[in-house]
Amino acid sequence: MASHKSPASSAKQGLAPLEHMSKSDTILLRKRLVGESCKLFFRSDPLKIVRAEAQYMYDEQGRAYLDCINNVSHVGHCQPDVVAAASRQLAVLNTNNRFLHDNLVLCAQRITDLMPEPLSVCFFVNSGSEANDLALRLARTHTKHRDVITLDDAYHGHLSSLIEISPYKFKNIQNHKQADWVHVAPVPDVYRGKYRECDHPGEDMGALYAEDVRRLCEKSTAGGGGVACYIAESLQSCGGQIIPPPNYLREVFRHVREAGGVCICDEVQVGFGRVGSHWWAFQLQGDDIVPDIVTMGKPMGNGYPVAAVVTTRAVADSFRAAGVEYFNTYGGNPVSCAVANAVLQVIEDQNLLQHAKEVGDYLLARCRELQARHSLIGDVRGVGLFVGIELVTDRVTKQPATAEAQHVLSRMKDESILLSSDGPDRNILKLKPPMVFSKQNADTFMAVLDQVLEELDDGDLPDPVPEQPVSQTNGKTNGVNGHRRKSAAEA
Amino acid sequence: MASHKSPASSAKQGLAPLEHMSKSDTILLRKRLVGESCKLFFRSDPLKIVRAEAQYMYDEQGRAYLDCINNVSHVGHCQPDVVAAASRQLAVLNTNNRFLHDNLVLCAQRITDLMPEPLSVCFFVNSGSEANDLALRLARTHTKHRDVITLDDAYHGHLSSLIEISPYKFKNIQNHKQADWVHVAPVPDVYRGKYRECDHPGEDMGALYAEDVRRLCEKSTAGGGGVACYIAESLQSCGGQIIPPPNYLREVFRHVREAGGVCICDEVQVGFGRVGSHWWAFQLQGDDIVPDIVTMGKPMGNGYPVAAVVTTRAVADSFRAAGVEYFNTYGGNPVSCAVANAVLQVIEDQNLLQHAKEVGDYLLARCRELQARHSLIGDVRGVGLFVGIELVTDRVTKQPATAEAQHVLSRMKDESILLSSDGPDRNILKLKPPMVFSKQNADTFMAVLDQVLEELDDGDLPDPVPEQPVSQTNGKTNGVNGHRRKSAAEA
Repeated sequence: MASHKSPASSAKQGLAPLEHMSKSDTILLRKRLVGESCKLFFRSDPLKIVRAEAQYMYDEQGRAYLDCINNVSHVGHCQPDVVAAASRQLAVLNTNNRFLHDNLVLCAQRITDLMPEPLSVCFFVNSGSEANDLALRLARTHTKHRDVITLDDAYHGHLSSLIEISPYKFKNIQNHKQADWVHVAPVPDVYRGKYRECDHPGEDMGALYAEDVRRLCEKSTAGGGGVACYIAESLQSCGGQIIPPPNYLREVFRHVREAGGVCICDEVQVGFGRVGSHWWAFQLQGDDIVPDIVTMGKPMGNGYPVAAVVTTRAVADSFRAAGVEYFNTYGGNPVSCAVANAVLQVIEDQNLLQHAKEVGDYLLARCRELQARHSLIGDVRGVGLFVGIELVTDRVTKQPATAEAQHVLSRMKDESILLSSDGPDRNILKLKPPMVFSKQNADTFMAVLDQVLEELDDGDLPDPVPEQPVSQTNGKTNGVNGHRRKSAAEA
Repeated sequence: MASHKSPASSAKQGLAPLEHMSKSDTILLRKRLVGESCKLFFRSDPLKIVRAEAQYMYDEQGRAYLDCINNVSHVGHCQPDVVAAASRQLAVLNTNNRFLHDNLVLCAQRITDLMPEPLSVCFFVNSGSEANDLALRLARTHTKHRDVITLDDAYHGHLSSLIEISPYKFKNIQNHKQADWVHVAPVPDVYRGKYRECDHPGEDMGALYAEDVRRLCEKSTAGGGGVACYIAESLQSCGGQIIPPPNYLREVFRHVREAGGVCICDEVQVGFGRVGSHWWAFQLQGDDIVPDIVTMGKPMGNGYPVAAVVTTRAVADSFRAAGVEYFNTYGGNPVSCAVANAVLQVIEDQNLLQHAKEVGDYLLARCRELQARHSLIGDVRGVGLFVGIELVTDRVTKQPATAEAQHVLSRMKDESILLSSDGPDRNILKLKPPMVFSKQNADTFMAVLDQVLEELDDGDLPDPVPEQPVSQTNGKTNGVNGHRRKSAAEA
């Protein structure tokens, strides 16, 4: 067996209370024992995080970081009610859903109560990936069709079946051959996409983008596979924080259904009230927009692995009729459902939808102010606490400012703010913080971003660009008290 | 939002402290809100389990059941050290593996220390299904081949990619067409399989069964797909608790590697010491047997969703070289790794391998005694706490005693013992209890089984057979104290 240092022996060696080994040892072991395809944030100088609370994460030296990226910790890192619910249930019962349990049915009731009719049947799984995979199975079984229409730059999960429908991933795999059952529709991005608002003033951009989906339906039907489903995140996240234009889903759903397919909204990243005005992001497109299948995950367990598929009675019945039992070892177990119920309760008790709306509106307004002052910001878009700031080197050509974006991330980290970038060119700064993110946090974020963009305006971009490592001095002298960056993160 | 009864209001209505609603309401909501493809145990009269401890589960009336089936609760239901480790870490940090954390690397170290060289690189995921799906991706990326050789009656998980290689499932799906990249080898079952020990006295049964795999390799290579991998549970579980004959894996691995494929051992059900003499069931076939990829899950988290893939540096490097990042939201998070580390510690501290061996040997010997007295028992097989008792109506024709097996399950439940059956004919009684299952439990089990088989010998099988529901009287008058079945379960 491995001999590893106990916390007690660690203390003797001057390690932090929550460390078992030095950061350099952690890095060494990680490199040796964990697949390198699993990437770290800030690769040249990764963070060792030992604890977290609400919207803050703390490294092994006690330095606090303002977390703008961890949407999984939806109601805040280590939210006490959620931790208590998990701990309580873990001590009493944690078994599979072949036994009756109240937590499971209460969770199903709460979730379906938040959905428009006829979305009324739940399947519980462990991850957003498992949810999307099951959604594909449901769609194919129900429609008896094969093909899937997905969006360019989409990411739906790490499973084989999902890599196939995730151009965000498969475009980067050497020699990947797009499956013949996959049809890729353009991202409904009115800023940089196939159809740009600036080129189509006054037009129905939603209908325009949906027309491409209609053509793919036609192609799929002609090809013999037939449309099993259209799947998309209600707001595309990895693809670059995209807000589809009004009328898009309405038109898409019409075309897909006319072709005999079903419509899947992936709410894994954007559900559970992140958009502020609604529980689910698809609802932004209108009260009449009702998918056939909704998948959800990440925020659902605030870090505990729990996810779900919600569908109609008709789709669920087709799946049952096909004769195959669906068994998911941990799906819907009493602990994961206790956690999900606690998360829902916290969202309600703390009125987090309203909070996300207020802080999100404020953040977006402040971002737009910044856009007026920094030409590097080409576009600001978002809704609630789902915000994208697209950096371009030229507002007319919209040349992606990839290097600048990476520099911003590095400088923000240096200033104790965790931010990420995304989109195919990694030039979109992406905010999806825990929902307890405050206006004060927004102010801190904006002040630091303003300063970093100033530096860039002054020609501060090093060449070549990569992340700027935290200096050794900073690494060694900081701490919760006294460190000059504490105010930035914890203000 | 759903209004649901709080525990307080439940108490007023005479519900048990851990219930929110009556069992009939739970059933009603489950039927309405949860996909019916998710099946309950004992469908005509399912169990509502509200708590569990060690090898016992308790229903809403306080009745105790001896658990012979929940291998997931490996070190015992609600094992206190594991619960404490989870609760402690949940309160401190639960985030993704893009940050460095000691729990992750310590877990990787412990797991790889338990593996033969060169199995040295880990990928952490949420479920056995996710692990097997990733294993297929690794195999295909590494070999640049497409085809998969799987066993008949195999089950490797609920995901699309795994249903394709799981005859246990796909044979039951209406109109399922076996994919052209899937090759199905015979189950190496020397009792009832393609080659039976009784027909091949003194022959090398392992080599005989492996020869079929060699022929499939040839076919795959000729067909152009090429063998990406052979995948099998080290001991086939759902397929009927099958123990492959000596020399089987050695010969299979040789053929598969000669064809350019890799060898995957699925230890999701049988790993972590269940077989008693070794940590991993593939080790039963010899010290020289080293797979290229091992997948593990269920027992790893004692109910917490955590699973892993362990592979060689060469395979991991091929995956990295293919250029795609692998990100799994919860995979290897500090909580799941704290849990896995605690499970490993409990296995060691309580010497559970040795215990599984002793109790398993005892249980098998007692089963064989029973076999001598009841002609219904055609075969007894197993290793450690992985035991199958195959029921046949005729020992010569080996006609599966499916109806009798279902009757046994129902009667055992009636006597407060949870047992399941498996195999394509559901005639194999399957024991895979929590590893704390004791000799005394084995005695209880054997005594009750003996009695139930006596009844069957006396011609007690009702016709038609299905599960015999627990009588209303039993349901209403039982309790922890005084119930006549308490002794059976809790002895």
